[in-house]
Amino acid sequence: MNAPLQIRRVGIDTWRENVAYLHRDCPVVRAAGFQALSKVEIHANGQTILAVLNVVDDERIVSNCELGVSEDAFARLAVQEGHEARIQHAEPPHSIAALHRKIAGERLGRDELMAIIRDIAEARYSKVELAAFVVATNQTELDREEVLYLTEAMIAAGRRLDWRSVVGSGPVVDKHCIGGIPGNRTSMLVVPIVAAHGMLCPKTSSRAITSPAGTADTMEVLAQVELPFERMVQIVRDTHACLAWGGTADLSPADDILISVERPLSLDSPGQMVASILSKKIAAGSTHLVLDIPVGDSAKVRSMAEAHRLKKLFEYVASHLRLQLEVVISDGRQPIGRGIGPVLEARDVMQVLQGDPQGPDDLRQKALRLAGRMIEFDPDVRGGQGYQIARDILESGRALAQMEAIIEAQGRTLNPPPLGALQAELVADEAGVVLAMDNQRLARIARLAGAPQVPGAGLDLLKKLGDRVQKGELLYRIHAQFEADLQFARDLALKGSGISLGSDEAWARAANLSRGFSL
Amino acid sequence: MNAPLQIRRVGIDTWRENVAYLHRDCPVVRAAGFQALSKVEIHANGQTILAVLNVVDDERIVSNCELGVSEDAFARLAVQEGHEARIQHAEPPHSIAALHRKIAGERLGRDELMAIIRDIAEARYSKVELAAFVVATNQTELDREEVLYLTEAMIAAGRRLDWRSVVGSGPVVDKHCIGGIPGNRTSMLVVPIVAAHGMLCPKTSSRAITSPAGTADTMEVLAQVELPFERMVQIVRDTHACLAWGGTADLSPADDILISVERPLSLDSPGQMVASILSKKIAAGSTHLVLDIPVGDSAKVRSMAEAHRLKKLFEYVASHLRLQLEVVISDGRQPIGRGIGPVLEARDVMQVLQGDPQGPDDLRQKALRLAGRMIEFDPDVRGGQGYQIARDILESGRALAQMEAIIEAQGRTLNPPPLGALQAELVADEAGVVLAMDNQRLARIARLAGAPQVPGAGLDLLKKLGDRVQKGELLYRIHAQFEADLQFARDLALKGSGISLGSDEAWARAANLSRGFSL
Repeated sequence: MNAPLQIRRVGIDTWRENVAYLHRDCPVVRAAGFQALSKVEIHANGQTILAVLNVVDDERIVSNCELGVSEDAFARLAVQEGHEARIQHAEPPHSIAALHRKIAGERLGRDELMAIIRDIAEARYSKVELAAFVVATNQTELDREEVLYLTEAMIAAGRRLDWRSVVGSGPVVDKHCIGGIPGNRTSMLVVPIVAAHGMLCPKTSSRAITSPAGTADTMEVLAQVELPFERMVQIVRDTHACLAWGGTADLSPADDILISVERPLSLDSPGQMVASILSKKIAAGSTHLVLDIPVGDSAKVRSMAEAHRLKKLFEYVASHLRLQLEVVISDGRQPIGRGIGPVLEARDVMQVLQGDPQGPDDLRQKALRLAGRMIEFDPDVRGGQGYQIARDILESGRALAQMEAIIEAQGRTLNPPPLGALQAELVADEAGVVLAMDNQRLARIARLAGAPQVPGAGLDLLKKLGDRVQKGELLYRIHAQFEADLQFARDLALKGSGISLGSDEAWARAANLSRGFSL
Repeated sequence: MNAPLQIRRVGIDTWRENVAYLHRDCPVVRAAGFQALSKVEIHANGQTILAVLNVVDDERIVSNCELGVSEDAFARLAVQEGHEARIQHAEPPHSIAALHRKIAGERLGRDELMAIIRDIAEARYSKVELAAFVVATNQTELDREEVLYLTEAMIAAGRRLDWRSVVGSGPVVDKHCIGGIPGNRTSMLVVPIVAAHGMLCPKTSSRAITSPAGTADTMEVLAQVELPFERMVQIVRDTHACLAWGGTADLSPADDILISVERPLSLDSPGQMVASILSKKIAAGSTHLVLDIPVGDSAKVRSMAEAHRLKKLFEYVASHLRLQLEVVISDGRQPIGRGIGPVLEARDVMQVLQGDPQGPDDLRQKALRLAGRMIEFDPDVRGGQGYQIARDILESGRALAQMEAIIEAQGRTLNPPPLGALQAELVADEAGVVLAMDNQRLARIARLAGAPQVPGAGLDLLKKLGDRVQKGELLYRIHAQFEADLQFARDLALKGSGISLGSDEAWARAANLSRGFSL
C-alpha cells in the first residue's frame, strides 16, 4: 500500500465509470508503475472502490500529492475533498472469471450471473469490461435459464418496492412497450383510465434514449416527473397512480449501467431486453403487466415469428418470477397518433382525454385496448369486458379527472414549453395512397428538429397509412425552435420523407395481408 | 453545425482514446443535447476526428466557450491551443456495421476487416467499441482466412519498412517468442550472433505488459532503446542489427490500440495473437522469422495439440504473406536462465556472451539453437550446420563484440541501474527434487518485488527442474529496492513459492515422458 494522497473532486462526468486522476509526477505513479487505464483500488473513509486510472500532466487538474476522482467515484466514496486516501493496484473483480467463461461460449449459472451483476451494480466494472459482458451475452444468445438468472440478479442488486401496505393482496398493474414506434404515448392514457377503475398503477418511465420523446419527456410538458422517491410513493397512495421518471428510484441499477454501453454500441439482444424490462417492473413492485410488442418493417421487431419467440421468452421469465404477464403483439407499421416530439405528443394525449374530435383515433383505440387488458386483471371483471369499461371511463371524463389529479399531485408545469415557432411543411411530390411509413426515418427527422431536448420540436403528421394524398398536399409539418435545426431536419426530409406513396391496387394488396396482430 | 469553440489542451492521458471535454453550461451542450459519452465529431484546422464526450462541471478544466481535448486528440488535431473548432454529433464509423455482423456471428471479408482496422488505426473507435471488436473476434474464433485478412489490414494501416536498399534480395531475419516464460531473453543473444554472421536483424521489442521484464526493458539496462525512427535505421545500416523498443516506429498501429483493451481484459485469442505478431514483423520488413512457442503447464500454451494448431495458423498466414516462417515448439516448463527482472536478466545475457562459466547453460543452449535455425535461412549454409556456426560465433567472442557495437551505437547506459539492495531468501521446507516450476507464480512474485518498474528488482533462481535440494537450502533470492515491495513479494512467496519438490521416483517418471519439443 502506498503513501496517502488528498482526495480532490475532479468535476468530470464519466457517466457511471469511476475514474481516478493521478499526476504523472506523483510519487505513487512512479513507484507503483501505474499506467494509464490501470485498474486501481481506492481506500478512503472505510470504503473501497475500483477505478480506472487516467494519468494527468496538468497541475490545474491534480497536483502530484492529490488523488483526483470523477464525480461518480466522489459520490461513491462519500468523503470531503482533502480527505486522505490510499491507492493500490486492483485485482480484477472476482466475477471476471465468469465473464471469461461467457466469452469462451459457456453457459453461466445463477451464482455466476449474480456475482457479475453485483459487481456491475457496485461500479466494479470498467466501461471496457461492461462492453465485454454486453457483447459476450449478445453474441452467443443467452439461453432462457440464463435470462431468468440475469433478471433475478438485476432485481437483487437494487431496491425493490412493495405496495402491499397500500393494496393488500390486490394487483399492482403496469404496462410497457418495447419501443421503436414514435408517438406511442399510450401510457399517459392507460394509467389514468386504470387508476380511475381503482387499480394501483405506479408507472415509472424512461426519458428518450434514441427516440424523439420518452413518456417521461412528454409527461414533463404537463407536470414534474423528477420526484424524490418518498414523494412518488405518497402520490401513488393518494391518487393510485403516477407518471414519473424512473431514474431516481434505484430500481435495477445494474440495468442503468449496462444501458450506458448498450446505447453507444446499439446492442439490445432479446435476453438483455427481457431482463432489463422485467427486472425494472418487478423491482417497482408490479404484480401484473401488459407488454406491447409492435411489429413492422421499421419497428424493433420485424416479423411475427420473431415477435412470438420474444413473447415466449418474456413469458418464461415472468412465470418463474410470479409476474402475471399478458403479451400483446400490435401493429407497428407506422407512428401512433399525429405528433412526434414531447409537446406534440402531449397535445394528442390531452385531446383524447378531453374527448376532442381532433384527437387521433388510433392512439385512442390502442390505449383503450391496452387499458381493457389491464382492467381484466381485476378478478371482478369478466373476460372481454375490459375494453367496454375503459371506454366508459374515458368517455365519462373520469380518465381526464384522474389525469388532472395526477398532474396536480406531481406538480403542474407552470410555464409549459411552447410548440416550436419555426415551421417547415413537407408536401407530396406525387398523388397516391400512403403505403408505408418509416418509423426510424420519421424519428430521425424529429430528432434533428430538436426533440426531445427542445420539447416543442418535432413532427405533426397529417397523413397516415391508407390515406389518399394529392400532389402538393401536406404530409407533415416540422416544428423547431432554432433555424439550424429546422434546416437539418428539412434537408433530411427532402432526401427521403419517410412516407411512401403508391397505387390504390398496391394498397389494397398490402391492406389485405393477414398480419395476426393481437391488438 | 454549432458555433465555434476554442480548443484547449486538457493534460489527461486517455491512452489512445480521443476524449472531448465540454462544460455542462456550454451553449453547444445545451442546444445539441450532447450527453456524457456521446460520440462527437471535432472539426479544426481542416481535420476531423471522432471523440467521446465527457461533460465537465469545473471551469478550471474547461470554460463554457472552450472545447477541451485529451492529449491523444490534441496531438491528432495538430493545432495550437485557442484554435477555433466546431463540434457536432458523430455518426458511428462506417465499419460499425461490419462489427455488428461479427457480433452476430458472421464471417467477415477482406474489405470489412480492412475498414474496421483502418477506423481503429485512425482512432475512430471508442474504448467500448474496441472492446466489442476484441470480444466478438475472440468469442466466435476467427477462421484462418479472417486471420489472414486481419493481418493484412493491420500491416496496411501503418508504416512498412523496406531494407532492400541495405540487403538487396538478402534475407531480413527476426525471431519472436509468444511469451509467458520468465527470463527468456534469447533475443539479446540471438541478435548479435546472427548479425555477426552477416545477416540483417533489425529487432524491435516490446516492454513488459504483464511480465516482470520485456526484451526492451532488459536491453535498457545496457543501452538506450527509445530511438527515433531515422536513428534506428542508421544503426541497422551500421551494425546490421538493433535491439530497440518498437513503440516509436508506427508499425501496425492498430495492434497497439487493440492491445490497450486486450490487456485489461486479459484476452488474447489465437487469431489476435497471430495477426498481432505477424503484422508487426512484416511491417518491420522481416522476410524470415523463427517463432518460438513454449509449451508447459504454466506457459501460455499448455498442450502439444494446442501448440500444433497455433503453429498451423501461423504457417497459413505467413505463407500467404510470403514470410518464410520456422516455428519451433520449445520446453516451457520453467523459466529460462537464472534471473527474472531486467538487471538480473541482463546479467545472465552478458555472462553467456562473455563465456563466463557462471552463465546459465539453458539460456545459452536455447539461444544457440534458435540462432542456428536463423543462420540456416542463409542460402549458403547447409541444413544442420547453423548450430555449429552459432556456437563458433559465440565462443570466438564475435557475438560479444557485435553486442558491444550495438550497445555503443544505441548509446550505452551511463548509470546502469543497480541490483536491488534489499534481499529476501526463500528456502526449501523439505528435501527433494524440483519437479515443477510455476512460471506465472514466479513472474508474479518478481512483479511484486518491483520488476520491471524497478529494474534491479526480481528473482535470482538457484534451483531448476531436476535439481536436488536439501531442507533449508536456498531456492531463490528476491531482490527489491523498497521495503514494502520486498515484503509483498516475500509474503506471496511464503504462501506458495512456485517451486514443487518431490521424490526421485516422481522426477524419473516426469523426466521420462516424451514431450516432443522441437527445440
